[in-house]
This record gives sequence, C-alpha cells and structure tokens, in this order.
Amino acid sequence: MRKTMLAMATGVAMMGGLAANGPVRADEGMWLPMQLPDIAQRMKAAGYKGDPAKLADVTQPPLSAVVKVGGATGAFVSDQGLIVTNHHVAFGVIQYNSSKERDLIVNGFVAPDKAGELPANPDFRVLVTTGFDKITDQILKDARSKTGRAYFDAIDAASKAEVKACEADVGYRCSIVNMYYGTDFYRVKQLELKDVRLVYAPPRDIGNYGDEIDNFMWPRHSGDFTFLRAYVGKDGKPAAYSKDNVPYAPPAHLQVSTAAVKDGDYAMLAGYPGTTYRHRSASEFANQIEWQLPSRIALFDSLLKDIAASAPDGSDAAVKYASQVQSFKNTLKRAQGELEGLKRSDAVHVRNADEAAMMAWLDKQAGAEATRADIDAMQRILAESQATRERDQLFSMMRSTPQLLRAAITLQRLAIERGKPDAVRESGYQQRDEALIEGMLKQVQRRYAPEVEKAMLADLLKRYYALPADQRIDEVDQVFGADAVASTKALDALYAGTKLGDEAERLRWMQTDGAALATADDPMLKAAHTLMPAILRLEEAGKQESGELMRLRPAYMRALIGFRESQGRAVYPDANSTLRVSFGRVQSLQPRDAVAYTPVTTVGGIMEKHTGVDPFNAPQALRDAIAKGDFGNTADPALKTQTVNFLTNLDTTGGNSGSPVMDAQGKLIGINFDSNWESVSASWMFDPRYKRAVHVDARYMRWLMDKVYPAHWLLNEMKLPR
Amino acid sequence: MRKTMLAMATGVAMMGGLAANGPVRADEGMWLPMQLPDIAQRMKAAGYKGDPAKLADVTQPPLSAVVKVGGATGAFVSDQGLIVTNHHVAFGVIQYNSSKERDLIVNGFVAPDKAGELPANPDFRVLVTTGFDKITDQILKDARSKTGRAYFDAIDAASKAEVKACEADVGYRCSIVNMYYGTDFYRVKQLELKDVRLVYAPPRDIGNYGDEIDNFMWPRHSGDFTFLRAYVGKDGKPAAYSKDNVPYAPPAHLQVSTAAVKDGDYAMLAGYPGTTYRHRSASEFANQIEWQLPSRIALFDSLLKDIAASAPDGSDAAVKYASQVQSFKNTLKRAQGELEGLKRSDAVHVRNADEAAMMAWLDKQAGAEATRADIDAMQRILAESQATRERDQLFSMMRSTPQLLRAAITLQRLAIERGKPDAVRESGYQQRDEALIEGMLKQVQRRYAPEVEKAMLADLLKRYYALPADQRIDEVDQVFGADAVASTKALDALYAGTKLGDEAERLRWMQTDGAALATADDPMLKAAHTLMPAILRLEEAGKQESGELMRLRPAYMRALIGFRESQGRAVYPDANSTLRVSFGRVQSLQPRDAVAYTPVTTVGGIMEKHTGVDPFNAPQALRDAIAKGDFGNTADPALKTQTVNFLTNLDTTGGNSGSPVMDAQGKLIGINFDSNWESVSASWMFDPRYKRAVHVDARYMRWLMDKVYPAHWLLNEMKLPR
Repeated sequence: MRKTMLAMATGVAMMGGLAANGPVRADEGMWLPMQLPDIAQRMKAAGYKGDPAKLADVTQPPLSAVVKVGGATGAFVSDQGLIVTNHHVAFGVIQYNSSKERDLIVNGFVAPDKAGELPANPDFRVLVTTGFDKITDQILKDARSKTGRAYFDAIDAASKAEVKACEADVGYRCSIVNMYYGTDFYRVKQLELKDVRLVYAPPRDIGNYGDEIDNFMWPRHSGDFTFLRAYVGKDGKPAAYSKDNVPYAPPAHLQVSTAAVKDGDYAMLAGYPGTTYRHRSASEFANQIEWQLPSRIALFDSLLKDIAASAPDGSDAAVKYASQVQSFKNTLKRAQGELEGLKRSDAVHVRNADEAAMMAWLDKQAGAEATRADIDAMQRILAESQATRERDQLFSMMRSTPQLLRAAITLQRLAIERGKPDAVRESGYQQRDEALIEGMLKQVQRRYAPEVEKAMLADLLKRYYALPADQRIDEVDQVFGADAVASTKALDALYAGTKLGDEAERLRWMQTDGAALATADDPMLKAAHTLMPAILRLEEAGKQESGELMRLRPAYMRALIGFRESQGRAVYPDANSTLRVSFGRVQSLQPRDAVAYTPVTTVGGIMEKHTGVDPFNAPQALRDAIAKGDFGNTADPALKTQTVNFLTNLDTTGGNSGSPVMDAQGKLIGINFDSNWESVSASWMFDPRYKRAVHVDARYMRWLMDKVYPAHWLLNEMKLPR
Repeated sequence: MRKTMLAMATGVAMMGGLAANGPVRADEGMWLPMQLPDIAQRMKAAGYKGDPAKLADVTQPPLSAVVKVGGATGAFVSDQGLIVTNHHVAFGVIQYNSSKERDLIVNGFVAPDKAGELPANPDFRVLVTTGFDKITDQILKDARSKTGRAYFDAIDAASKAEVKACEADVGYRCSIVNMYYGTDFYRVKQLELKDVRLVYAPPRDIGNYGDEIDNFMWPRHSGDFTFLRAYVGKDGKPAAYSKDNVPYAPPAHLQVSTAAVKDGDYAMLAGYPGTTYRHRSASEFANQIEWQLPSRIALFDSLLKDIAASAPDGSDAAVKYASQVQSFKNTLKRAQGELEGLKRSDAVHVRNADEAAMMAWLDKQAGAEATRADIDAMQRILAESQATRERDQLFSMMRSTPQLLRAAITLQRLAIERGKPDAVRESGYQQRDEALIEGMLKQVQRRYAPEVEKAMLADLLKRYYALPADQRIDEVDQVFGADAVASTKALDALYAGTKLGDEAERLRWMQTDGAALATADDPMLKAAHTLMPAILRLEEAGKQESGELMRLRPAYMRALIGFRESQGRAVYPDANSTLRVSFGRVQSLQPRDAVAYTPVTTVGGIMEKHTGVDPFNAPQALRDAIAKGDFGNTADPALKTQTVNFLTNLDTTGGNSGSPVMDAQGKLIGINFDSNWESVSASWMFDPRYKRAVHVDARYMRWLMDKVYPAHWLLNEMKLPR
C-alpha cells in the first residue's frame, strides 16, 4: 500500500510504466497528452509513425491544431484559420444565419470566397489551448487542513486567483480543472477566438442524413462536417466580429490525407471529451442505472412532446426550437442507449463486485484505515444526496430550460455578483464572463417562443407538484402557485406581462444595478428575484457536498489506482473537457449474434436508405452525382466506389464531436461525429467488444467539395487535389 | 414463335433442358416434383447425393413424408405418424387445448406418452398427397369453345366431376389445381387424416421468441416447432377422433440428421407454398404496389387497434383473439415488408420494362396477333376490376372477419346450396365439405367476443360509408344502415339479439332447411339472409371475370415462357399450394451496405435479446440450461455452442411454414419457419441478393427435447441419440 500511495503522489507519471509493461485493456484510454511519452512503446506497437514524445506538448504540432469549438472539438486544416468540425457542432451557427428566405439548414452553404463567409452567433467561440500545466500544490495548499464548504472555498479561491493571474494575458481564457476527482489540478490556458465565420456546410439532408433514426447507429451515411474560419484583429489578437478582421494564423494545422482507409489501419484522435464516469463508485453506478437514466428518459420524452404540441411543423416556433429539439432528441436517445448498454453489461452487479474486490484488496494494505474512513464518509454523502434527486432534477430543469426565465435569473444573479469584489464572484458571473452573458441574452430572440416555454414549464411543474410535501420549495410555490391549476394562471400572467422577450429590454436590464432589478415590475424578473434565495440556498448545500466529495474522493481514487495496479492496469483520469488523445485502429464490429458490420460505408448505402422522406431524403444533386459515379481521386481503390463513413475502436465520448481522426503519419483521415449504439454506455463502462467511434471519411468531404457542392478554392487552400 | 407455342403445349417438359443448359437464375425456383428429373444435372451440381428422378413421384420417399398441415407444411419423422411442423402452424391446436387453468401457450406441452397426447380442434387436418396428375385435356375439353362465365363453368363442371370420381375413394380429398394460370390442370389426391393430436410444444417464449419484433427478421432465435401425431381407425382408414384410434403408419418418414449445418452446405426443402405472383402482369404489379399494399397496411393496422381497444390485455376476449391478433400482425408486417422490398427493387418500373420487352419480342414472332389480342383483352379486364377495388376489399373483410356473421352467412349459403344437386353446389358447400363447416361452426365459441366483432365491423363500415355513392351495396345499407350513426344502433341490436353465440344453436340451424333459415327470427341470420343476394351477385361477376382471365391469361404465359426461353431461362408455375421442391444452400446475407449476417445463430443470441419482458422473455429453464452449457451431442463442432436457427437461399413463400429442410442425403436438418425481411417481396419478385429462408436448426429441437423440456421417448421413437 505504501508504494501505491507514494505512486499516487507523483500523479500520472507512474502509469506509463505500467501501461508499457502490464496487460492493459486493449484500446481503452482517453490519455492526457503528458501520459503519451510514457506509453510511447504501445503507440509505436500500434503503428504510430510519429514521435509520441512530441504529443506531450499541447502547444506543438499536431496537438496545437486541435481546438475547442462550441462544446466540442475541431481542427485547423489550413494556415489561414480554416477549421473543420461537425455539422451538428456548427448547427447553431448555420441556424443563426438561416431564415425562411435563406434556409442554410435545408440548402447548405458554400461561401464563394472569404468575403462571402458569414459571421457566427456572437457567443460562439473557438479556443486554442496554449497551456496545460499541473498546479496541484498551488490549488490545494490552503485547502488541506479544511473540510466541506471551507475545503471547497479554499480550492475555489486558489483557482480564481490562478485564473485571474493567467487571464492578465489579454485575449486568453483560463480555467482550473481537476483530474482523478480532486486528486490533481491543472491550469488550462486558451486563446479565445471570438470572430468565427461559416465557410462551408452541406445541406442538412447530407450533414444529418438519417437524423435521430440513424443517430448512434452503424452503418452510417452522414456527411456530418462543416468548415468554419477563425478571424482576429489586424494586430493578430482575438477580437469580436469586424469586417476588417483578418484570418487567424494558427500555431499548426493538419494536412488532410488523400490516402485510403481500411480495416485494421492505425488511427488516432484528439479532442475534448466532456465527461466520463468510469471511476465512479458502485452506488453511483446503481443510481445512474436504476433511477437517473429511467427518469431522464421519461422527462425528455415528455418535453419533446410538449414542444411538438406547442410548436407544430411549419410554424415559426418550430424553426426557433429546431436546435433544442435536436439536442433533446440526442439526450433522450443517448440515455436509452446508455441504459440498454449498462443493463446488457450487468453494470450494477459488475461494478459492485469490482468495488467489493477493491475494498477487500484495500483492507489488506498497510495503513488502509484512513483511506477506508474517507471512502466510507464519501459513500454516506452520496447516499444522502440521492434523497432529493427528483426535486433537484426538476428545479435544475426549470432554471435552465426556459430561455426567458433563465435570462431573468441570469440578470438577477449577475446583479448580486456584481455587488462583490470580482475575485469572489461566483464562477460564470465574473467580469470575464459578462461578454458571454451578453451574447446569451442576445440570442434568446432567435430561439424563444412563449407558448413553448409555458408548455415545458407546466410539464416540469406538474411533476414537481407530485413530489412529497417535504421536498417542495417555498419560493417555487410562491412564483408558480401550489398546484397545477394555480400554475396555469401564474404562467399565463408571467408570459403575458413580461417584456424580456425584447432584446433591447434584456440588454437594458443588464446595465442596471441590483436595486433596480430587485424592484423591477417585469413579472419574469420578479419571479427570478423570488426564486433567487432558493437557488442560492440549494447551491450552498451543493457546494458543501462538492467540497466534501472533492476532499474524500481522492481516497477512493487512490484505492482504485492501487487496486488496478495490482491487476496490471493503468488509469487515465475520467474525461473532463480537457484535451485527450486516444489511439487504436479502423475496426469492424460484431454487435450481436450472427451480425457483423464492416468498418467502411459507401454511397450505395445512401441510395439504399433513401426514401425521399425526411430524414432519408438525399438531395437530388447528391443522388445525381452518385448515379453518375464520377468519384475520381476520392474513390476507394478496393471498394471501387465512394466511401462515406468509417468505424474505429477509438475511445471517445460527448465533446469528441468534431475531433480530427488521424492516420499513422498524423494526417487527417476523418472527422469523429458519433458512437455506435452499443457503446453509448461507454461513458460509464468501457467494453472493447462494443466500443466504436463513427467518423466522416475525409474522402467523402473532398468528393462533395469537388463534385457535388463545389468549393474548389477551399480544396486549393487545403492543398488538396481536385 | 411457332416453336415456343409448341413447347408450351408439352407443358413443363421443355423446361428441364433449358434449366440444365441455360443460364438459369441461381437458386430461384419452386419446382414441381415432375420437373426435377429434368434438372437433375443442376441438383447434382448443387450437391444433392440422392437420385433426383426419385423426387418426381410424390408417392415415393422422400416426398411422401411431406404433408400438408393446416394451411402449411409438415413432415413425418417416425413410422408411427409423428409429424414435425411449426409452433405457429400448430398454434390453433395449442390454443384449443389451453385455458386459464392449463395454459399450454405459456407453459408449452410435453405429452408423457401416446395416451397423454391431446386431440386437435375438430377441423384440423393433415393431408398426405397420394396423387398429382396432369389432366389438362379432361378439364379443358368442354371449355375450349366457350368464353367468360361459360368457360369458367365448363372448367368448374369438369373439375367437380373429376373430384367426385376421385373422392369415390373414401377417406381422400381431391382437388383440381391449375398451373401457369389456366394453362395446365392437375388432379391432386390427398388422404385426409382427421384425428391429429398434440405431442410436444415448447413454451411460446421459445416457440415464438421475439414475436412480431423479430418476425421476418434475421438473426433469429426462435424454437418455432411443434410435434403432432396423426391417428387413424383400427382399420387403418382416416377417422374422426376416437380414443380407440391407432397411430397412422405413413408411407415414408424423414430421418432427423445428427450432423452439423454450416455455410455453403447443400440444402433442399419440400412443401406447399401458397401463392406467388411472379408471373403477373405489369398492371397487377403496379396495383399491388400503389394501392393494394398501402390500403392493406392501413386496414390491418386499424383492425389491430380495434381488437386492442375492445379486448384489453388480461381479458377473456384477449385470450380468444390471440390467434387472430397474431395472424393480423403477420399480415400487416408482411405487407409492410413486401411494399418496402418492391419499392427497393423499383418493381413497378422493372416489371413494366420487362413486359414491354416481352411484348416487343412477341410482335416479332410468327402468328403473334392472336396472342396479342388475348393479352390486350386480359389487360382490359384487369383495368376494369380495379375500379371497385376498395369496395370489394371492404365487403370481403365484412363477410370473413367477424366470426358470427361469417357463421350466419355460411349457414344461409349452405341451405341454398343444399337445394341443388350435389355436383352443381358451390365449391366449399358440397356434401364433402359439411364436416369442415360443422368444425368451423363448433370452434367459433373459443374465438369470439361480441364487443370485438362489433368494433371491427364498425371500423369496416366507417370505411365503407366513405366510398363514392355508386359503389354502395343496397343490401349492406339495409342491414347496417346508411351511415355510421345508424350502424352503431344496428350493430348493437344485431349482437344483443342473436343467439348464434351459442354452439348448440349454430349446430341446430345447420340441421334445418332453407325455408326455416329464410324466415329465422335471429337477427344475425336475418342479416345474412339480407346480404345473400349481394354476395351472390358479386360472386357471379367475379366468376365471369375469373373465367375470362382463365381463358386469356395462358396467352400471356405463352408469351412470357417464350420470351424467357429466348433469355435462356426456365419457368416454374407460380405457387398454388401444391407440393414443390426448392434446392440451394446454407448462405449468409449482406442485406445492406456494411452489414453482413452469418447464417447460423446460437443460444448466446437468446441471452443477448433477453429482457425479461415479452416477447424477449426466455424461460428460466432455458436460461439455466444455456448458462449450464451442457449441449452434449447437439453442440456445433466449430462454434462450440448450441445453434438455434439457420439461413438458406431456398425459394419459399407463405405455406412453406413447417417445410422440412433436408441435407444432401435427404435427412432433416431443420424446419422452415420464416423469411428475412428483405425477401418478403419475393412473392412478387425474386431477388437472389436478398432472398433467404429462416429455419429452426434440428439440433436446437433435439437439445430442447433432450435437456430442457425432456421427451426422451420421442427421441427414441425418432431413433435419435440422447
């Protein structure tokens, strides 16, 4: 045990040796770039032709070409700031530039030249990671003697101080991220590019071919890619949109490959995977499978029905909620797949047995008592937090789902936080966040319809009213009434009376002070003001809990890492939206008895699926081009036709959307856009039999840009043949 | 042309040479047994080890072991009358013997010995074909100078006379079937076994694992088999059930194989395929795809909803309609698959182009004028019959779907027909049919609930009332009223007043004469009496049309056969419930881009699909046995586990359910029970890329009977190891 504890203190360093020598589970791993030199031997054995050591520095090629785009990933593919990401990642940008008269969602968009590119929504950001440094001691030094809220606050204060110092460098956003659940802390520094423009998007019937029917499915036939371009001021610094801005010169860009992709080829991927839970406790696994996923499925299914009923097809409201509907459908289907997968893997029992074995192992180690005491304390906190899970879920949805109520709460909260010194303001409400808040307040306009918001709130309230009496929140009852009948009246009055639907009005309130907001006549602002004490109260309780969990969970992680070491397995930190690398290969899939999926699809499959009815309504231009069969230099040499998507065993999760998929030379061979249905549960449990990632084949992009919706100037810019 | 016409006159004989020498489309063909000697070379080349010439005689082994069971197929597998067929073919027998107290549907059934076997429903029949002879000249000699109804009547009279002469042999049923749409006529003579008993059935959760979700799907994991036994009187002659009857000694039985089945193995199948339409005209293809299938889908979907609403789960009515619901679901899904497949094959245009090419070919032949004149006349009749297709569909459903109305109509019709000499009675109402009618009248009891019948009739009437005024039928309006409001009252009165729900009452009416029935007080009998003129009138029009089509269609067939001959292809007659043989091999399937199905499934797939919820609720005994892994001599030597189902490219359609699948030695390796989804449209258009048949692996049956639900006495009887 002593050795393990010691190893823990040195963080990730010890894992390399293990990984290189031990029987590590094949292809699992969202590796921190700094871990890669330690597993260089494995990467080389897998087929990587580059120098793994070079991957450790995120400011050097190729990782410096990989950027955060919206909530996901993209990559520079030219020296003029050209970025490739997914159609679904850039969907908000496409929607923002669409209207009934010029529907870029339906028709796609090909900029004729740089001057014809279209500005993204003002809050859309591209972030270039320029620093990724471990600063655990700086962050924890004041916290170490504390517990609970004080522990949380000490970390929070140290983090804010670090962020402030870091952001003294104008044009950068910094954040502190923790690895292994509070065990280690890293400072991430990112250049914030604010002028992003739409360059090339295929029609939705290509970019999202198959929509929710094919979502998470294989075989797949989607052209889920879009090109954006980042601009900066003439001084080369980040700047808001101006027509005088110039293309950003990135620190590196990826060369798009012209080679074929085939079963067994080496592949790797870099990106910003959002969240995984693979190292969570057995009780958290059980909560996820037995309550969280079933209740999420019921809730989102219901909200989608609310939107469908209140924003019928063809209505203005339907256009406004297109993006939210897509997001909800994605959430719903993901939850269904995750539940199915976790049940198939019998994850409750497997994780329970695994944890029991870990605890048994721990008990045999020297000095286990303190670790066990922390773990026991952690388990008690987790059990307590489950007592109010229904209530917490509903109140969180009430605050975040309706655009106008969310705007009002944000305004009220901002006013409160503005009353404090900037350093102690709540994260997300500091001076550095105000431009983002303004952007959010501006775009409400394009994504809001009162009848839809009312329908969704009424639904959430109906569920809230069914809670046990001791779970009710006084402030919610004050604002919306004590039962469904009262809430109907309250919602009518709220939306009839508010002027927050007006953009100028929202921005005006952003400029006022707390006193003015506290006494505002607008019923939506009043509602937010009434709800605020409850929000703060529950947030406070949450921070107490978070602080304790952050203090106690490292004990669990130490035990887990030690136990895994005893099994000969290395541990990477659970995904947390930081830059990670995974490597593996192009691989087929045997999803179930007697079924085998080959790893490369072709345009023939587009025609097989085509029904002429959405979501299988391939555009005429695409069908004509397929019928013509003129695939030129993008045709697959073995299959003698045009490929569309391909499958790898790379380790991904949400946030990896848009991640560049590279070959053994580091050239871009595809864009990650989805997982197969069988691997949706991999966010909790990795199963190498089923875990696959789904990519757009770069050759399909090239063919579309060459022959179907031509943009030869972009191919030239990327130094690609026509 | 002359040569072709001549060849036609010799019927099937000419096809053999063609088949042996020409580039016949691989594996297509539901061959008449008499065609097999002519294609012996192809059968041997495919791998058949027996003598194809022996297959020509249906009274010799192995074909004499293949029997008609219900509307489908089965095979003798012991010298004591033991028959294997599908669970879904024997489902009515299982249901007939089930009650809430003893639910054989849920629990399955294993007879402890012969004395413990259970009698089937009285109208259940097993038919052993003992004669299959071409008598074209006898049937057509009086018809040749006639047209229309007279042509029909001449064939009908000749057929009845042949049947009567044939059935002078007591215990036999005879029928006249026409091949190539009126071109040739055959007399089929079948021994009619009336005492059939249930011997062995797995629980429905095995026999119908996956139910309508897996129906028509591959991979499949269904134990869709059941064993029956035929009994005869002590004199060896067919007899109704009596406990003194003795097991029937069949003319032959198949030996169940103990060998493995693997990809590429030779396979053949014999059975009674019901109906195919592959040689229908282009206009009939268009009608099927553009109207018939879409309207059928809408109608059956609606009737299923009617049953679900009026016979909720757990009700007595739900038990009574279980069989009909299963049949409706099957019809619905088949229609959906057929439509999807025919659209995928672009069948309207393909068949149109094919027919146009045929007509162009015909015009170049000597003496084409007369043939073309007949074909043109045929096309006009087909166009006319489409004018009232909606009305005809609905009126047909009204007469056939509701059990009680159908019984009343049958009683009235029988009384009318009894007034004629037996020889001129309508087919189905002759003396020879009365026992079957009585059986039908008896079993109404177990399959009838008034609220369900009313709901279905109301639905059909609602559609009827939406027809154009000139399509209305006066008699329907008289019985049910002129609109939906009136029909509600009429239906209430009809079902409140009728006593036909009582079995004794129905049988009593069967013994009365036409005068009594014509003046019967019972409102259901009155309704049937009122409807009768319309039934007879439309039937008369239909016979006129049938007669003309039967007279004219042979011209179309001559042209088609000649044209196919010019393409080097042989033609087998469209399926018509006569004994056919198809041969091919165990074969995998690539149903669409990037998807490959292997041809053998295993018990691992049962566990993958198992959810614990119907229809994927594998019984505990099965799951325990799978977990135990004791597969003994039934395990697959390569897969090292227990197989369940397998896939071949054999040419099948509805009616082939229960067909024995044989290996190169003629041993039974499986029981046919389904097609894959992609081949449902094969009833109209055969596509070798997609056409597959799905079989229960005989090894799965043997394993279940040995280890899971043991019936060692049956294994012993079949001379199979334990």
